[in-house]
Amino acid sequence: MAPQYAQSLRFRLPPLLFFLQTGFIIVFIFYVDIEQNVQTKQHAFTNYYSEFQDVHVMVILGFGFLATFLVRYSFSGAGFTLLVAAMAVQWAVILNGVESMYHRGKIWINMRSLVVAEMCTASSLIAIGAVLGKTNPVHLLLIALLEISGFVLNGWLLQTFLKVQFLNTIMLLHIFGAFFGLMLSWILYRQGSEQQHEKEKIDRKTGLFSVMGTLFLWMFWPSFNSVLVEVDRLDRGRNLRAVYSTYLALAVSAVTAAGFSVLTSPQGKLNLFHIQRCTLAGGVAIGVAMSAVHLPWVAMAIGFAAALISTLGTRYIKPIMLFAFECHDTCGVLSVHGLPGILGWMVQLLLQIADSDDLTTAVRFAVFHICTLLITLSLSMILGIITGFLLKCNFWRPPQNKKLFDDQAFWEFPHLGGKN
Amino acid sequence: MAPQYAQSLRFRLPPLLFFLQTGFIIVFIFYVDIEQNVQTKQHAFTNYYSEFQDVHVMVILGFGFLATFLVRYSFSGAGFTLLVAAMAVQWAVILNGVESMYHRGKIWINMRSLVVAEMCTASSLIAIGAVLGKTNPVHLLLIALLEISGFVLNGWLLQTFLKVQFLNTIMLLHIFGAFFGLMLSWILYRQGSEQQHEKEKIDRKTGLFSVMGTLFLWMFWPSFNSVLVEVDRLDRGRNLRAVYSTYLALAVSAVTAAGFSVLTSPQGKLNLFHIQRCTLAGGVAIGVAMSAVHLPWVAMAIGFAAALISTLGTRYIKPIMLFAFECHDTCGVLSVHGLPGILGWMVQLLLQIADSDDLTTAVRFAVFHICTLLITLSLSMILGIITGFLLKCNFWRPPQNKKLFDDQAFWEFPHLGGKN
Amino acid sequence: MAPQYAQSLRFRLPPLLFFLQTGFIIVFIFYVDIEQNVQTKQHAFTNYYSEFQDVHVMVILGFGFLATFLVRYSFSGAGFTLLVAAMAVQWAVILNGVESMYHRGKIWINMRSLVVAEMCTASSLIAIGAVLGKTNPVHLLLIALLEISGFVLNGWLLQTFLKVQFLNTIMLLHIFGAFFGLMLSWILYRQGSEQQHEKEKIDRKTGLFSVMGTLFLWMFWPSFNSVLVEVDRLDRGRNLRAVYSTYLALAVSAVTAAGFSVLTSPQGKLNLFHIQRCTLAGGVAIGVAMSAVHLPWVAMAIGFAAALISTLGTRYIKPIMLFAFECHDTCGVLSVHGLPGILGWMVQLLLQIADSDDLTTAVRFAVFHICTLLITLSLSMILGIITGFLLKCNFWRPPQNKKLFDDQAFWEFPHLGGKN
Repeated sequence: MAPQYAQSLRFRLPPLLFFLQTGFIIVFIFYVDIEQNVQTKQHAFTNYYSEFQDVHVMVILGFGFLATFLVRYSFSGAGFTLLVAAMAVQWAVILNGVESMYHRGKIWINMRSLVVAEMCTASSLIAIGAVLGKTNPVHLLLIALLEISGFVLNGWLLQTFLKVQFLNTIMLLHIFGAFFGLMLSWILYRQGSEQQHEKEKIDRKTGLFSVMGTLFLWMFWPSFNSVLVEVDRLDRGRNLRAVYSTYLALAVSAVTAAGFSVLTSPQGKLNLFHIQRCTLAGGVAIGVAMSAVHLPWVAMAIGFAAALISTLGTRYIKPIMLFAFECHDTCGVLSVHGLPGILGWMVQLLLQIADSDDLTTAVRFAVFHICTLLITLSLSMILGIITGFLLKCNFWRPPQNKKLFDDQAFWEFPHLGGKN
Repeated sequence: MAPQYAQSLRFRLPPLLFFLQTGFIIVFIFYVDIEQNVQTKQHAFTNYYSEFQDVHVMVILGFGFLATFLVRYSFSGAGFTLLVAAMAVQWAVILNGVESMYHRGKIWINMRSLVVAEMCTASSLIAIGAVLGKTNPVHLLLIALLEISGFVLNGWLLQTFLKVQFLNTIMLLHIFGAFFGLMLSWILYRQGSEQQHEKEKIDRKTGLFSVMGTLFLWMFWPSFNSVLVEVDRLDRGRNLRAVYSTYLALAVSAVTAAGFSVLTSPQGKLNLFHIQRCTLAGGVAIGVAMSAVHLPWVAMAIGFAAALISTLGTRYIKPIMLFAFECHDTCGVLSVHGLPGILGWMVQLLLQIADSDDLTTAVRFAVFHICTLLITLSLSMILGIITGFLLKCNFWRPPQNKKLFDDQAFWEFPHLGGKN
Repeated sequence: MAPQYAQSLRFRLPPLLFFLQTGFIIVFIFYVDIEQNVQTKQHAFTNYYSEFQDVHVMVILGFGFLATFLVRYSFSGAGFTLLVAAMAVQWAVILNGVESMYHRGKIWINMRSLVVAEMCTASSLIAIGAVLGKTNPVHLLLIALLEISGFVLNGWLLQTFLKVQFLNTIMLLHIFGAFFGLMLSWILYRQGSEQQHEKEKIDRKTGLFSVMGTLFLWMFWPSFNSVLVEVDRLDRGRNLRAVYSTYLALAVSAVTAAGFSVLTSPQGKLNLFHIQRCTLAGGVAIGVAMSAVHLPWVAMAIGFAAALISTLGTRYIKPIMLFAFECHDTCGVLSVHGLPGILGWMVQLLLQIADSDDLTTAVRFAVFHICTLLITLSLSMILGIITGFLLKCNFWRPPQNKKLFDDQAFWEFPHLGGKN
């Protein structure tokens, strides 16, 4: 279905970029302003700014360099992430502000709104991970915008109809992004993908760049999970508890991923893909379960289970997905974000039920909690499928089969050695 | 003019380093002390330290790795940046303290003085970008020290005679550094530079290291532009406004640079050099214009225009500079720092005039503002030319033509594989 | 002594990892909890968290990427550091809390305890630097756990019997780690190591990754040295003084290391190994001497002397250690951490004696101070030797001689190009 000859993006990408960017600027002219009355919560800012930056570093540098692992696709991995993220944060700021615009007439920019926008962007980057290397930047931009729209819609539905707390809806980003990306990848599946593409591999240097991305995600994840935890005067500890829990879950997760990587390897060796990705599973799971985790050992146990699921998933489920379901998942988002996210959701359910005193509350909570997951899963999968069909058409000029996983389709290589 | 045989730096670099370093230590013995009465502004420190670190990361890691893009010059790019920056901050602390030494008898070190020193260093690193690969470390040190002296002098002149605010003078660092470096590069021009030097190119891995430098600059630029914005109790928002404006300008800048890069490419592909550098143009322009920008969409429009100018400049003006004016600009500092800086200056002028109520104030401001630019431009260009002639002599042992853009002239390569 | 055929780690590494990890989780179930009463020192947290993160970045990313310099051992350098650190911080939290567990029945997790745990981990990573490339991950884990146990014991002895301040005992981490690692490397010495191993070299790209690690250490070292300096209301400046002193010492250290690197080179060129490591010597020395340094020029002089010792040590002492004492020190920890640490200790002694008013105090201090060093040195060396003998046995499956400094012994290379 892909075209025989490479087609230039010259009349696809720039018009789309300028159209969207001009549109965003126009929306900003009429509806967006900077929040001024901040001196009352002066102290909150101090915290927020450095934690916001940690999240920013994770999204731009962490996800960006994590995506450089393919041997001939590393410019695209880092460059497209920057491009998509720069566009997506603006879109997310607007979408998240729609309700405020409706009620107060303006969308206000503050630290919190930027952090939320970055998290929506992270969700879209997870979805993109599943189709990395098999799409062009026009696809990626459309995926990001549609995924964020779906994710914000999902959060609004859950908050409005099920009274789910904001923090809990935002932490579903891993599940939403992963299943959206998975469905997308399933629809966009091409003949011949069941064989290993010759360019879909790591070399020593791109592997190391990717490890760098992993480490930035791993190091700053405590900020990611704690930044939106609301702090009240009586329980300042909640924020810190999120930091410590994530820290411990990630430490256990790194150890466990290494252990299972060696254990499941016929030669008894470590697999770089596991170290790059499954070490992060603990951060995903604890993020989703956060509000119910009070003891450090529970966080550690979650980290253990998440890394176990993630490593086994990468080793055994990923090939099955490819051969049985014709779903090629480049970055393994199902095993790294999807399954650990569902694990975190289940742990939260169990802990909440164990904590509740009477049966009625427990059942009530369970029903609401299960609905939350079902809505999120169905919405993400339906939107993923719709997005997939939308992108399947040749109008968007998908890369040729032989140019998959290759920078050359998108980057001026002769000019790399040139004066500019 | 360059020598036929490579000459060792053994009797040039170490004596210069030890002479300067000993001199600095002696100055520190007699005149420099750490400011003690900080407990009154305890809160300010908290902010300052993490923002200082962001600036530090930008200068050392951001500029350092941005300079690693040349395929055979990456050790020099990162290593010389570290060496020059380590020397330059000490010199900048001393120079910026001369006035305080005159009045109070001591130069006081505090967070603010270190941030200012780092910014002066950034200015010198911009100048160095224009001559990267065509000089030796002795040159680079002298350039940095002279550039910083000129920049501090420029700031003093503007503050003393034109009553320009300190923040506005420091943000001229992009314009000063770019034009200083440009003139320097013009004077140091060598025969044969109009042909592409065989080593002046990027490869996949050095390109990626350089993208990493770009990302660090891109991510932390909001701190760079906001750290010196003075905060008063009534308008805490000023600092935050600088953060949000820079953030938005950079996001738009990244999108726009990618768009124009594809649009101006005959093959409709992205150019890595544009993504590495022109995405940053928005940060430069908004930094210069900052004090007059109050609305988020203005920041976004500035980001758009800056990236446009920067991308077109890199694509079309850079070759013209080389062929018509014999000025070879390795890192494209004219298009990345010079032109966006002047754009920011113009926007500031227009916004201030639009904001002022009566004509007299507007005209008065315009005259002062135009003088500011003229003084900065002429001082930077004159000093750049003088520095160029100073460095042209063979005493400083310039690298041979065939060793341009090559680490081998400066790094022990046999020993790389050796025990130490 | 090493086996003829490579033996899989499948039945060594995973059991050890799961055994230790399960043990740690069990200890956490019964004895560890998160400190709740933090709202009283709300402000302290703000500082602490971002400085904690700087230390975290130094340990994981700084030490991790510093260890990637070997051309075929870069996955192991970064990956094993992550694995060891993830395990070591848990062990260090437990060990450092033993006293609190004894008195209060619980080990409390707070920002301070995590920072201390990270510093103990740094100490073990320094020890590992001496044997990098000659061991397997099972070795590295055992080394880390034993080194941390020894280091915590050393701190307890010094605090209990010599009444040394906590901060001073923790800053001995460089000396303890370096001499522990050195003895270990001496015991584990193999026939044939006096010749340059063919894989023990740097290439352009791994050298650059390693420089990145250096820069992260260099940039964040001020946080490392200042985070545990206790702040009281009357002398807020102590914390800041540590920041400024470290900053200046490191700047001078970078300049000096470059100078001596060129001066001692027969060709008059820079040595990348010196730039990567000796630039950090100033941070080590000033860290140990910190509590006695009050003037900025003293910090600069310490930075100068430390870089001098470190560069000369790397150039001249390292080969002597190898040929005369049969001690192969991969990362040069003696010259980078050991000698500068002892220099810092001596400077502290001299400064304290110069500061004290009467002779009795001075002599008393000197005796205590000398005992501190002697205890640390002997404990570290004895434990290093014991650990060395423990690891020498074939049960732990040391890598074959021809697989030294090679990722292939531990990483699934065929799978790198595979689907997972």
